[in-house]
Amino acid sequence: MKILSVTEKTSFNQLHMGRLLVHDSPHFKILSFSFLEGQELPVHSHEIEGEVSIFVIEGEGEFLGGEVPIPAKAGDIMICNISEPHGIRAKGPMRVLVTIAPPI
Amino acid sequence: MKILSVTEKTSFNQLHMGRLLVHDSPHFKILSFSFLEGQELPVHSHEIEGEVSIFVIEGEGEFLGGEVPIPAKAGDIMICNISEPHGIRAKGPMRVLVTIAPPI
Repeated sequence: MKILSVTEKTSFNQLHMGRLLVHDSPHFKILSFSFLEGQELPVHSHEIEGEVSIFVIEGEGEFLGGEVPIPAKAGDIMICNISEPHGIRAKGPMRVLVTIAPPI
Repeated sequence: MKILSVTEKTSFNQLHMGRLLVHDSPHFKILSFSFLEGQELPVHSHEIEGEVSIFVIEGEGEFLGGEVPIPAKAGDIMICNISEPHGIRAKGPMRVLVTIAPPI
């Protein structure tokens, strides 16, 4: 059993988004990203089998990758195939929890 | 791509914990549970391969299943094998996000 504070272990950085590898195993990979206004996880996709979830822990921004950006706020979750374009952009300080299964 | 508000779709119930199936696929199952003070996901385990993560969205309580209860607060995550005893108890209104991979 592993327990840690995702929010205490992530920090904001003026230069680039913060990144914390929370867990990596054969079953899933869990990461947390922290963003300041305008920072983003750019739209990307991988031609592999699997799915990704992005849960907004705090803050607000936009889910990217669809036809238009979709508002993202604390408590929202986005789930898609890893092969579908996906990303997220912050409108202010924002933290997200990302789960990838199976792990990349 | 699926997007929904986990917090808006879960509600508290005096009689029992709230349960929302967020997503179920061959890759992972995602659920959200909402608890009032004293409500819990009792300690349990399954003799199958796989892992589970429990992320505390809001509120506080205790992670169960180890030798002693471990404090759980918003921003904390617990990760363990599905075969390890695990559970969570609320000390007040609490919401968690649970991911199981591969799904049960």
